[in-house]
Amino acid sequence: MSQHLTKLQTRQASRLDPDRLFPAEPTLRSLARDLYETVRDLPIVSPHGHTDPRWYAENESFPDPAQLFITPDHYVFRMLCSQGIDLDSLGVPRADGSRAETDGRKIWRIFAENYHLFRGTPSRLWIDHSFEQVFGWTGRLSAETADEAYDHIADCLTRPDFRPRALFERFNIEVIATTESPLDDLKWHAAIRDSGWTGRVVTAYRPDAVVDPEFDGFAANVERFGELAGEDATTWQGYLAAHRERRAFFKSFGATSSDHGHPTARTENLSPADAEALFQKALKGTCSAEEADAFRGHMLTEMARMSLEDRLVLQIHAGSHRNHSGPVMATFGRDKGFDIPTRTDYVRALKPLLDAVGMEKDLSVILFTLDETAYARELAPLAGVYPSLKLGPAWWFYDSPEGMRRFRELTTETAGFYNTVGFNDDTRAFCSIPARHDVSRRVDCAYLATLVTTGRLDEDEAFEVAQDLAYRLAKQAYRL
Amino acid sequence: MSQHLTKLQTRQASRLDPDRLFPAEPTLRSLARDLYETVRDLPIVSPHGHTDPRWYAENESFPDPAQLFITPDHYVFRMLCSQGIDLDSLGVPRADGSRAETDGRKIWRIFAENYHLFRGTPSRLWIDHSFEQVFGWTGRLSAETADEAYDHIADCLTRPDFRPRALFERFNIEVIATTESPLDDLKWHAAIRDSGWTGRVVTAYRPDAVVDPEFDGFAANVERFGELAGEDATTWQGYLAAHRERRAFFKSFGATSSDHGHPTARTENLSPADAEALFQKALKGTCSAEEADAFRGHMLTEMARMSLEDRLVLQIHAGSHRNHSGPVMATFGRDKGFDIPTRTDYVRALKPLLDAVGMEKDLSVILFTLDETAYARELAPLAGVYPSLKLGPAWWFYDSPEGMRRFRELTTETAGFYNTVGFNDDTRAFCSIPARHDVSRRVDCAYLATLVTTGRLDEDEAFEVAQDLAYRLAKQAYRL
Amino acid sequence: MSQHLTKLQTRQASRLDPDRLFPAEPTLRSLARDLYETVRDLPIVSPHGHTDPRWYAENESFPDPAQLFITPDHYVFRMLCSQGIDLDSLGVPRADGSRAETDGRKIWRIFAENYHLFRGTPSRLWIDHSFEQVFGWTGRLSAETADEAYDHIADCLTRPDFRPRALFERFNIEVIATTESPLDDLKWHAAIRDSGWTGRVVTAYRPDAVVDPEFDGFAANVERFGELAGEDATTWQGYLAAHRERRAFFKSFGATSSDHGHPTARTENLSPADAEALFQKALKGTCSAEEADAFRGHMLTEMARMSLEDRLVLQIHAGSHRNHSGPVMATFGRDKGFDIPTRTDYVRALKPLLDAVGMEKDLSVILFTLDETAYARELAPLAGVYPSLKLGPAWWFYDSPEGMRRFRELTTETAGFYNTVGFNDDTRAFCSIPARHDVSRRVDCAYLATLVTTGRLDEDEAFEVAQDLAYRLAKQAYRL
Repeated sequence: MSQHLTKLQTRQASRLDPDRLFPAEPTLRSLARDLYETVRDLPIVSPHGHTDPRWYAENESFPDPAQLFITPDHYVFRMLCSQGIDLDSLGVPRADGSRAETDGRKIWRIFAENYHLFRGTPSRLWIDHSFEQVFGWTGRLSAETADEAYDHIADCLTRPDFRPRALFERFNIEVIATTESPLDDLKWHAAIRDSGWTGRVVTAYRPDAVVDPEFDGFAANVERFGELAGEDATTWQGYLAAHRERRAFFKSFGATSSDHGHPTARTENLSPADAEALFQKALKGTCSAEEADAFRGHMLTEMARMSLEDRLVLQIHAGSHRNHSGPVMATFGRDKGFDIPTRTDYVRALKPLLDAVGMEKDLSVILFTLDETAYARELAPLAGVYPSLKLGPAWWFYDSPEGMRRFRELTTETAGFYNTVGFNDDTRAFCSIPARHDVSRRVDCAYLATLVTTGRLDEDEAFEVAQDLAYRLAKQAYRL
Repeated sequence: MSQHLTKLQTRQASRLDPDRLFPAEPTLRSLARDLYETVRDLPIVSPHGHTDPRWYAENESFPDPAQLFITPDHYVFRMLCSQGIDLDSLGVPRADGSRAETDGRKIWRIFAENYHLFRGTPSRLWIDHSFEQVFGWTGRLSAETADEAYDHIADCLTRPDFRPRALFERFNIEVIATTESPLDDLKWHAAIRDSGWTGRVVTAYRPDAVVDPEFDGFAANVERFGELAGEDATTWQGYLAAHRERRAFFKSFGATSSDHGHPTARTENLSPADAEALFQKALKGTCSAEEADAFRGHMLTEMARMSLEDRLVLQIHAGSHRNHSGPVMATFGRDKGFDIPTRTDYVRALKPLLDAVGMEKDLSVILFTLDETAYARELAPLAGVYPSLKLGPAWWFYDSPEGMRRFRELTTETAGFYNTVGFNDDTRAFCSIPARHDVSRRVDCAYLATLVTTGRLDEDEAFEVAQDLAYRLAKQAYRL
Repeated sequence: MSQHLTKLQTRQASRLDPDRLFPAEPTLRSLARDLYETVRDLPIVSPHGHTDPRWYAENESFPDPAQLFITPDHYVFRMLCSQGIDLDSLGVPRADGSRAETDGRKIWRIFAENYHLFRGTPSRLWIDHSFEQVFGWTGRLSAETADEAYDHIADCLTRPDFRPRALFERFNIEVIATTESPLDDLKWHAAIRDSGWTGRVVTAYRPDAVVDPEFDGFAANVERFGELAGEDATTWQGYLAAHRERRAFFKSFGATSSDHGHPTARTENLSPADAEALFQKALKGTCSAEEADAFRGHMLTEMARMSLEDRLVLQIHAGSHRNHSGPVMATFGRDKGFDIPTRTDYVRALKPLLDAVGMEKDLSVILFTLDETAYARELAPLAGVYPSLKLGPAWWFYDSPEGMRRFRELTTETAGFYNTVGFNDDTRAFCSIPARHDVSRRVDCAYLATLVTTGRLDEDEAFEVAQDLAYRLAKQAYRL
């Protein structure tokens, strides 16, 4: 990235503080900076995220700045919504696919006029970083600079070096995982492979649509799932066989993990007969909420058993109350910023799975939480003793400087560093990827500098751990 | 305040650290100090509190120092009680109105002898600040200095410049809200208005006595409520009309908000028929605990609907287990320091109200919590997306330097600054008001200095946000 | 300790940072150091722990380094287990008493090769401190130094000045409490007393085996309990009398406290008839889980009543899900690192006991939690008002620098310092005792330095509080 930026930066001085996110105290800051210098340019390993494989397959230009920065980024439009700005006026797609506002510049101006709302948020950090490091624009967004920024970015987007593959290479991404449903034919992944491009883009197996009885169209999904797998997925054994088949298919496109977004961390280890009975009720749509939850919970244990066979790493992203607003769900559909975290229990919830397979050394289950209160109390103690468990990084609302700091402070003393798995950017905001990894590396180096300066870690160890957290652990934990 | 203090301070040097609550690191401290200098003398906007309007109406001298600092301040007598000092010996009124000890000097001496108990507490900060800034006494309270302090303060209290209106003006209070029941005739507010004094004292509508079926004398309260409103409040429509009428009456005395102190944040949006049926059970005293809770929850939604009509801001103070000690409740009655926070759910609890009116831009619902664990997990995400929701400042046990710091660290990254509403002192301890606002301004400036110094906010923005947090947001959020 | 160490340290420079755990900022650090200098050499008061009285009675040499540092320390073997190292290969005893690996050097090498796992954990702090301060070995443990460390420590262990009593004296332990079941005949305590050795080792009354209906062999335990007490403990009155008798017996061996390790903080205050009925069901083994829990809860109130008679301090250690892994429990038995904290409610749970005896000034109930979220929300407010309640120090997974810091930050503002009870090491790892107290003293001094430097406490007060926290409060709260 350096050559490109050098050229751009001759135009205008950087607005990014080179010491951002390092402690203010000079001794700490100096050591944090030294640590960071050794990891800042490491390749990006992105083992879990939501970028669109079509981008890499087609390598078309991204559309206008509003569609890059605002419309698809729920961090951005939720904050604007919270201050009374209509989702319609931001061009957020409605459930029927229509968009009330399609003029990118109009949308951008609303964003720019309200940029002060993002003060103190990670969005501000990511966006400022993207503007400067990706696009070379070093102004501060505001009503006054809205058009200048828009024109600058729009102009960049027309250029070949701002197409997805060029950015992928400029971002120094060693490998990135996308997330697909078992119902996906992975055609974009096939196209990437067939294109001869050498960027490493792998998929991940996210079977919510066929393991959650409450998912829209569950029965139809299972039927289609069986067709894709060449199995009769309407029988319990055929259904399990279809999972094995589709997992293998996903592995053939590089998948090293599955991912499971459940409302709770509940697991079950039912008898085959009980599991089959629930499955049949689920197909008939007669599961109670409790039974649906039990079935999802049982499927985590089934997935863990399959992981023991095929070595896919199992990720659990639990604890979100999805689509909280009834009216917004009705008008705009899913994923419109109204997913709100809830309290999550892990100790009782995970016991059935852990009693079944938790002591297996070859199993790797990565836990994510939206309930920080569980880190020190439940998750670090669990990950700090079960060989199969690891802790995923600070997620979603906690993918932020304070959230990451709390993650380390709340988990390290009990689980250490080596039961954690490095960083996930977990984003569909492509241009924010370097910024997010940069934030993570800075916060971890600040934490390590604090440990060294307060006599809790030797300095040579801190340099080694910095490499682990920024690069090695992600590759190792995700078997990449 | 400055001229008065200059005179007093020639007598004795200040014991207050001018840099208190600023970070120790010199760069941070210097910037925090610069920020604070621009907000320290801003007028006080106190949009929610419990001072007695009679003080301003009658403008009589406050009684002795013990009745000013100890007897009415549950922060003070609860700490003394925790170390085995009888509430009786502190002159705390019993439920029957009697006081076992009425000698102010005796009570004061107990307080002074035990002043070390308050080390590290916000009470210590507020009281030391009041002693010095309000009364010009710069000693440290102890058994040795008890009488000196008592005599000094008692002497001040006899002087005209220590009467309520003089202090109000010296404290530079631009506006203060008191809190009254709909059963209150607001005669003291009327007296203030009629007196020609220009101090701005407004009321707030706190209808617990007529919306909580478990409130002492609920049915009688509702009857009286109807009489005051000129409505038959024993019918559901008459009851709602009475609320509208009393809200309008409160507005005529400056009210811009209602306030609701519920044990949980539960809301309901019942059908009119179901609501009416519950209301009739409530009047008959036959509600189960669950039904009483549902009725309270429904009334929050009714109040929100009325807010859409009359623009009163709706405050929810949820999560306290009131009067925890049975024996203390029996002997001393309510509000004797035995209110203990409990876990509170907001995500499910608020959904009925939010589904009904949460997307309304003209509605303003301000949420307070005693369960800090909900800030990052539930409240910041909710306030960070619903246009009607704002976060109230750190409340009660959290109205403290560490509590305020955690509030910012736990909410800003997700909700930003502009979904918060500035500071509330929420106190009946009149002399602590300047101290409380000062603590808040200092802690916020320390936080802002940290953001700037770690590259998360530009310096010019920090100065603007400091004004917002100390002054503008409170006026704006409370429509004052 | 100083003379011994001076001799050892001429061999090799210290690896321990003399300023460890003090803030990095120089002003804070300097004051923290000054405070620490005044408490570092205070005698150790250890009012709650799990060292074996047999050590002091027999004064035999400790066995090999692995059996001192690894096999009995669940902090150590749980972390190794979490990274896939078999408990068997670490020589952890199986439920049947057998040990798969008995070669201390082999076990030690595994530990040494994996010592990086402990980076950032308190175990690392304690072990490094023990190596250097207790054994005078200043290397860093690793595969390379494994044998050197093993040989050094093994050699020390053969020497008379490394026997338990010599270490006890070198550690400057003024008094230490062990923890025994009422079924214990306290023969080792008798042997200590009869030996003429002047080290003060007291017992504590831990009646889980006879108050928990779900404890293995409950009915038989109660029968044996009655025999030891000379009472018919199968009747309710005889059972209570047996408690009184055994408590008195424990007091004759110095006990000043009882201790209760319950899964929750539930208390009950049943009528005598109901309590007796539950007790009879418990003896018959017919209690439901709910009834067993209610009986345990009621027994806390009975114990509190007895405490009012005999002045034993009552400790409640609540909130652990014991033996979480079914397979590990089956193979290795209890206490193998699989105890995981859970959410704990205190507000409702403690109300029955507090309504019964909570306002008693002569009662001292010390609360411990594994649910940090309860500190600011529930425990500090409760301890900050009830005269009978005190807060125990940060426990178990929180007995760590960050855990201790959070404890102070979350409790002091509401409960002050004087509703806390100083430090507990709560350990069976004898050599870690000085290290643990040292960590606590350092963290508290760092906290006090922060209060002073930010204008929240006067400097002279900080020196006084430092003494309180390091020494006086433990003696006072535990009546030692």
